[in-house]
Amino acid sequence: MKTTGVSIIGVGMTKFGEHWSKGLRDLMAEAGVKAILDSGVDGPDIDAIYGGSMSPGRLIGQEHIGALIADQSGLNPIPATRVEAACASGGLALREATLSIMSGQNDIVIAGGVEKMMDVQTPQAITTLGGAADMEWETSFGATFPSLYALIARRHMYEFGTTEEQMAAVAVKNHRNACLNEFSQYCMNLTVEDVMNSGVVAEPLKLLDCSPLTDGAAAVILAKDDVAKKYCDTPIKILAGAQASDTLALHDREDLSRLRATTHAANAVYKDTGLSPSDIDIAEVHDCFTIAEIVAIEDLGFFKKGEGGKATEDGLTQRNSQISVNTSGGLKACGHPVGATGIKQAVELTWQLRGDAGKRQVKCQYGLAHNVGGSGATAVVHILGR
Amino acid sequence: MKTTGVSIIGVGMTKFGEHWSKGLRDLMAEAGVKAILDSGVDGPDIDAIYGGSMSPGRLIGQEHIGALIADQSGLNPIPATRVEAACASGGLALREATLSIMSGQNDIVIAGGVEKMMDVQTPQAITTLGGAADMEWETSFGATFPSLYALIARRHMYEFGTTEEQMAAVAVKNHRNACLNEFSQYCMNLTVEDVMNSGVVAEPLKLLDCSPLTDGAAAVILAKDDVAKKYCDTPIKILAGAQASDTLALHDREDLSRLRATTHAANAVYKDTGLSPSDIDIAEVHDCFTIAEIVAIEDLGFFKKGEGGKATEDGLTQRNSQISVNTSGGLKACGHPVGATGIKQAVELTWQLRGDAGKRQVKCQYGLAHNVGGSGATAVVHILGR
Repeated sequence: MKTTGVSIIGVGMTKFGEHWSKGLRDLMAEAGVKAILDSGVDGPDIDAIYGGSMSPGRLIGQEHIGALIADQSGLNPIPATRVEAACASGGLALREATLSIMSGQNDIVIAGGVEKMMDVQTPQAITTLGGAADMEWETSFGATFPSLYALIARRHMYEFGTTEEQMAAVAVKNHRNACLNEFSQYCMNLTVEDVMNSGVVAEPLKLLDCSPLTDGAAAVILAKDDVAKKYCDTPIKILAGAQASDTLALHDREDLSRLRATTHAANAVYKDTGLSPSDIDIAEVHDCFTIAEIVAIEDLGFFKKGEGGKATEDGLTQRNSQISVNTSGGLKACGHPVGATGIKQAVELTWQLRGDAGKRQVKCQYGLAHNVGGSGATAVVHILGR
Repeated sequence: MKTTGVSIIGVGMTKFGEHWSKGLRDLMAEAGVKAILDSGVDGPDIDAIYGGSMSPGRLIGQEHIGALIADQSGLNPIPATRVEAACASGGLALREATLSIMSGQNDIVIAGGVEKMMDVQTPQAITTLGGAADMEWETSFGATFPSLYALIARRHMYEFGTTEEQMAAVAVKNHRNACLNEFSQYCMNLTVEDVMNSGVVAEPLKLLDCSPLTDGAAAVILAKDDVAKKYCDTPIKILAGAQASDTLALHDREDLSRLRATTHAANAVYKDTGLSPSDIDIAEVHDCFTIAEIVAIEDLGFFKKGEGGKATEDGLTQRNSQISVNTSGGLKACGHPVGATGIKQAVELTWQLRGDAGKRQVKCQYGLAHNVGGSGATAVVHILGR
């Protein structure tokens, strides 16, 4: 199989949640040190840093996050780059770090993601997240992310008969998975009724359909395949990665019930690897809202368009079923520190593919990570394998 | 000579200045379209976008700038990536775009930079720029960028006897060069006395020692060398590029009178190309303050450490002298829309190396671009050649 020639040789993450006593730099350093220790590389072996973060400027008054990571980790003077594509910033850091190794410039690279979201009042966090959508044509008229995804949900319900109960089933599954993950924010044993009875945020989405605000960081150490072998008996190969873009504003799209950026990126990684959706055993998908997981598992080809809700309700996305989706708990229940999410997906898949996922371990050979920015203006998809 | 294998085949920029009737997306599109037309490529030929922008979240409420560029340019669904390293965001976009071609994933890439700084009140712009320094240990205690560079200036004066008049000579030269550049913000025929008599901002730096707030955008089209030949008779080769990091906070450095990140990046590009500083005919260096140009021309090896002030005073950095420095007018006089600056440097060098620089044309074969983030926590250096 053609691969990128790059492997993951170490992973680490902080607990996702409300870290009142830790700042962005503490979280970032904690995740980075864990990944470095896990990999066995020495600081001086690292050639470059890529860090994903969406809005540290608005959330904590700090830009220049790449250099900050190098500084805090004692890794100066290596190149340190921040990338941003809203909630897909983490996935993008992984992608750019991979490309930098493929370019021949680097052998070992650390890719991290971080967001510190709890240091501002909730309305300010909501406004900040609005910067992922079209500020001039959506958020300045009052649209928020729950309301944008509510439009997607409404359209999906209209076209395919998807029900609110099916969306609730996503939350039930992901919060249950989160109970088996020590790093998750919200372990909750919910019923569909609990979700249905939670407060309405933007009809038809209720509180328990929405991912939370979260502090957290995650990091992975990447190495060129032949270098990886020196450090690691169980390197996890990045078989393929792809990124695609779409309009920022929902109203500029032909179709609200699918994300074209996801489809484009997914097609590219399937083509590169020769794998098909049915070959994928485990997927971390971008469930910022429950409807987003339903749309994602369709757009990624795991289920036919319109059948994602029913499949979820029927338990086909539970652990060790047809495909294990969001074993970490997903954004919904593991938490969603936006810049960290794409890297956390790679951390979870690495643990699963290595067989290190403890109580939530599933049987798997190929894993897929799917990270979305905004309402779908960016999608980044990776396929990992042993 | 070993090169990156990547060339610049088209360039474009907006006028730098106060664009009260144009938003970030207008500026970005204008620069991008100019670069595309200049290159002769068709939209569908472009494989990816890299955009540098420092703080669009705080300045205009919009993140997700990569996707926004793709959207506004009608270039969906290609990958679109924003990179950020404060005022070095533009240079970093050029570097990452180059690496993406070197990785084999792309043949033709657009690298752009943009910042819209005039839509907020000046104090808010100053605070936003403070996000490039160490928020927890510098800016939260009241440090601003003029005050940080004032510390650098004081130390340089103490160690080497550099004078305020020598710093003023940088401003005089750059504002004179700006008069020959239709895209510049401040054409001014200044004398050293004018600079000396301007209001003190942070001793010893006066108003005319400081670069301005600016709106603007710039873009370059990059292509793999063998593809470049199909579109362009005068491709400008990216001979080498390098990026380095240093501590965010000035007080963590061993030495205030040099920027180690510059030295590291410069050494890398000289080593890669086999060129020495004396081979460079023209340089666009990061003169966010007049002292910064003096420090830069020393750190880049054009003059011995401590002799940059005297060299400037003696006219050795004027057009067609020992080395032509900041023929565009530099950040100081052409203007400094922070995310755009690093790309503008490449635009100016391309025009000069092609022989298209009109009244400010200098004789040149090799050009160097030097872009700094913050007070030196990031430096990106490129060498271009015909």
